[in-house]
Amino acid sequence: MGERITVNASVREQHSHGEGSGLIGMPDLVAFAETTEEVSKLVALAHARHLPVVAFGTGTSLEGHVSAIEGGLTIDLSRMDRILEVNPEDMDCRIEAGVVRSKLNEYLRDQGLFMPIDPGADASIGGMCATRASGTNAVRYGTIRDNVLGLTVVMADGRVIKTGGRVRKSATGYDLTRLFIGSEGTLGIITEIQLKLHGIPEAISGATCQFESMAAAVQTVIEVMQAGIPIARIELLDESQMEACIAYSKLTGFEVLPSLFFEFHGTQAGVREQAEVAESIALDNGGRAFAWATDPEERNKLWKARHDAYWAARAMRPTYGAFVTDTIVPVSKLTEAVLGVKAAIVDAGLLAPMVGHVGDGNFHTVILVPPEDGGQERAWTLDRKIVEIGLSLGGSCSGEHGVGRGKRDFLVREHGEETIEVMRMVKAALDPSGILNPGKLLPDRVGQN
Amino acid sequence: MGERITVNASVREQHSHGEGSGLIGMPDLVAFAETTEEVSKLVALAHARHLPVVAFGTGTSLEGHVSAIEGGLTIDLSRMDRILEVNPEDMDCRIEAGVVRSKLNEYLRDQGLFMPIDPGADASIGGMCATRASGTNAVRYGTIRDNVLGLTVVMADGRVIKTGGRVRKSATGYDLTRLFIGSEGTLGIITEIQLKLHGIPEAISGATCQFESMAAAVQTVIEVMQAGIPIARIELLDESQMEACIAYSKLTGFEVLPSLFFEFHGTQAGVREQAEVAESIALDNGGRAFAWATDPEERNKLWKARHDAYWAARAMRPTYGAFVTDTIVPVSKLTEAVLGVKAAIVDAGLLAPMVGHVGDGNFHTVILVPPEDGGQERAWTLDRKIVEIGLSLGGSCSGEHGVGRGKRDFLVREHGEETIEVMRMVKAALDPSGILNPGKLLPDRVGQN
Ligand SMILES: Cc1cc2nc3c(=O)[nH]c(=O)nc-3n(C[C@H](O)[C@H](O)[C@H](O)COP(=O)(O)OP(=O)(O)OC[C@H]3O[C@@H](n4cnc5c(N)ncnc54)[C@H](O)[C@@H]3O)c2cc1C
Ligand SMILES: Cc1cc2nc3c(=O)[nH]c(=O)nc-3n(C[C@H](O)[C@H](O)[C@H](O)COP(=O)(O)OP(=O)(O)OC[C@H]3O[C@@H](n4cnc5c(N)ncnc54)[C@H](O)[C@@H]3O)c2cc1C
Repeated sequence: MGERITVNASVREQHSHGEGSGLIGMPDLVAFAETTEEVSKLVALAHARHLPVVAFGTGTSLEGHVSAIEGGLTIDLSRMDRILEVNPEDMDCRIEAGVVRSKLNEYLRDQGLFMPIDPGADASIGGMCATRASGTNAVRYGTIRDNVLGLTVVMADGRVIKTGGRVRKSATGYDLTRLFIGSEGTLGIITEIQLKLHGIPEAISGATCQFESMAAAVQTVIEVMQAGIPIARIELLDESQMEACIAYSKLTGFEVLPSLFFEFHGTQAGVREQAEVAESIALDNGGRAFAWATDPEERNKLWKARHDAYWAARAMRPTYGAFVTDTIVPVSKLTEAVLGVKAAIVDAGLLAPMVGHVGDGNFHTVILVPPEDGGQERAWTLDRKIVEIGLSLGGSCSGEHGVGRGKRDFLVREHGEETIEVMRMVKAALDPSGILNPGKLLPDRVGQN
Repeated sequence: MGERITVNASVREQHSHGEGSGLIGMPDLVAFAETTEEVSKLVALAHARHLPVVAFGTGTSLEGHVSAIEGGLTIDLSRMDRILEVNPEDMDCRIEAGVVRSKLNEYLRDQGLFMPIDPGADASIGGMCATRASGTNAVRYGTIRDNVLGLTVVMADGRVIKTGGRVRKSATGYDLTRLFIGSEGTLGIITEIQLKLHGIPEAISGATCQFESMAAAVQTVIEVMQAGIPIARIELLDESQMEACIAYSKLTGFEVLPSLFFEFHGTQAGVREQAEVAESIALDNGGRAFAWATDPEERNKLWKARHDAYWAARAMRPTYGAFVTDTIVPVSKLTEAVLGVKAAIVDAGLLAPMVGHVGDGNFHTVILVPPEDGGQERAWTLDRKIVEIGLSLGGSCSGEHGVGRGKRDFLVREHGEETIEVMRMVKAALDPSGILNPGKLLPDRVGQN
């Protein structure tokens, strides 16, 4: 592989961490693979030498997922970025794992198709599969889990398998596709993905609505979901996040108040109907009249602001660190969860703007971490408190960011020791020498470290 | 467990086979479990004695799934039929595995909710999970895979685990839920299920449309799907199946011609809009005007006829056996697949009415098996030919009925030896002594039997 495999210090440093988490783990080597065969050979070599292997997409994961905490080889997949096949009649495509979503969607636009999964960052689709990513559109289109038809995977010993296929459903054998989705590079390295696509809707409309209280905004979300409106996006930003976005993205016409951003997809008539129902629910809950963002440019500006929410939050305290939390609860518990988390933030005396894909019950805060001594500990304490609130309401400690290193310690609490033990049995079966992304996802057994 | 565990011959016989497949395998014992704890104790006992264990829902599976081909203990779950919890605000419920879908939907109706997965038979939800079932509504609502939030599972050694949870999505750990879905009782026994529910749509309308040729009917399906209409059901019946249904279900106003049955779900306006687009596509393809089935009674009669298609086909030749095939291809290949299969039926000189959930590319034939010598072989040869057509078009050997005993030999062809080997690794990890439904789903290794 010549220059595509390197010990260069700055390349290793770039691959030693993701976003957000402070965890650093320098790989000994970084290889930029270009084919499945190369990945297979690299993994086979690493396997023979008991060398840890970490897959690297775009490194936007937030829980220390990509840090090579035991050193070894990091395989960067960003050069595996070919779109191999698009089948417009079947609305599917086959791509390499390093393709990022913006590139795929640009490529597909002329064919009237799109891939709806939309984490804030311009992540690789392989990384999105590995973290079971979702994002703003998941309330309508599902997560990446629901949109993958099949995978090509390099196993821990270098063998290459294909899972799933091109058909929309199949009942023939274990669902290995779903087993690799969300496995965070600990069971195999995904090199190709067969993806479901969706038709770009005939009509799209966007709107925003502001509320005097978080409770009113959240109640609106709950009622919109219960009304069965097939809403494409429904995002909540608290007053603090709105303040950040107004400043960072130069949004006009907004007050510093809790806000909902809506998007409706469908036919002209369908979109109108959905929006009317949603607006009347919002008004009933004391929301202001909808501010419409009908032309694409205005709508893009709004969603760009939403996607930049993390950067906007960080810009509030440029010298601070940032730590993103990720809670999800059943929608009926959303008010209790959101208000509980807001109170916890106040108690902690920290600034932590809140933003969320609330149609699923999923929301984040960006805890701005004071640079002073003890700042990191205060942020972690708040994060634990937030997880605690979510779990106590029947939720999960991560709706979409995944486990990585950061959430490992909550897994037993969430799933129970026996369930985690079954996950360990699967891991041991597929990666017996434990070379794939060691120290991630699965918590250590008690008494082990 | 007293009388709930039995060696009674007729009970054992009832549990020795499912529908359709001729495979008989008598269990030595049948136990009617009433709680997860009982299942756990039974499995732990069987584990200690190396006794095979077969889970039994309602025994409607078609590929010899439930036959106790190595004897042992069959655990009948039909008495575990409690609906444990319904959360209307979150549109989910928790049920025991033996609940059948008609019972669940009757229970939910008053709350305006329903569980859309709808295999023809009134199967248990546990059995549906175990076979990754789908049915007429899957084109809109997904398969059972997409509608399960979490499971309680008894593992091969008797330990009990919970997978998933109540939230709509989560990124915390391996997707064990999906691993058990479709595992046909070979990895664990499902005792409880947390299910997503859906709101009964505000408006439902049904229609049928008849065509001069299969090609025209199939082309209509392809175009309806490509138009992105969120159709709830689109079922194809060939002229032979229509002949059977007209006779068996006393349908009036139909000719013996290829037909499509449609159902539209949505708001009043949405349903009207969907139906208009679908009708105009049908007319463009030479279909007759839609015959509307707007009142619920008429619609139910139609869908009852559709669900009775298997019995209607069998009634054409009461002395014959019956063997159901199950093919799925990418929708763009549907015409080629359907016409190829029709030609193969003619070549075989057999009667095999065709019916299918064609919106997914999935269709069945009911091969009527002549009672004479060699009849069974002719049916199997035709089945192999049909599988061959599906696989050669990028399809799967089973869209929804599963593998059981009958489809095992096609799995390597469909997935490749390496992929099957990874499935075997998972099986060996979770059921090391191989007591769970032995001889099913996974093909034997070459040279093994
Ligand atoms: C500002 C911001 C906003 C975000 N918003 C969202 C959001 O809304 N929703 C959401 O879900 N996430 C969000 N994220 C998190 C992140 O974007 C996702 O986790 C994303 O899926 C990671 O993709 P990646 O290519 O960057 O993966 P990486 O960070 O490179 O890797 C993530 C993990 O996957 C593994 N991996 C990567 N590629 C492969 C592969 N081909 N095969 C096997 N394993 C692999 C890695 O080893 C690692 O464990 C956000 C992140 C940021 C910085
Ligand atoms: C007329 C007719 C029409 C049909 N139409 C369809 C259709 O449209 N779509 C479709 O998908 N299927 C269809 N089927 C097939 C069948 O109804 C489904 O496979 C159904 O899901 C089987 O459920 P069951 O409760 O009868 O399972 P069973 O037949 O009792 O068992 C099936 C398999 O699952 C295992 N199993 C059962 N319960 C459990 C449990 N709780 N835990 C673990 N393993 C378990 C068994 O060991 C066995 O391997 C049809 C069958 C008939 C007879």
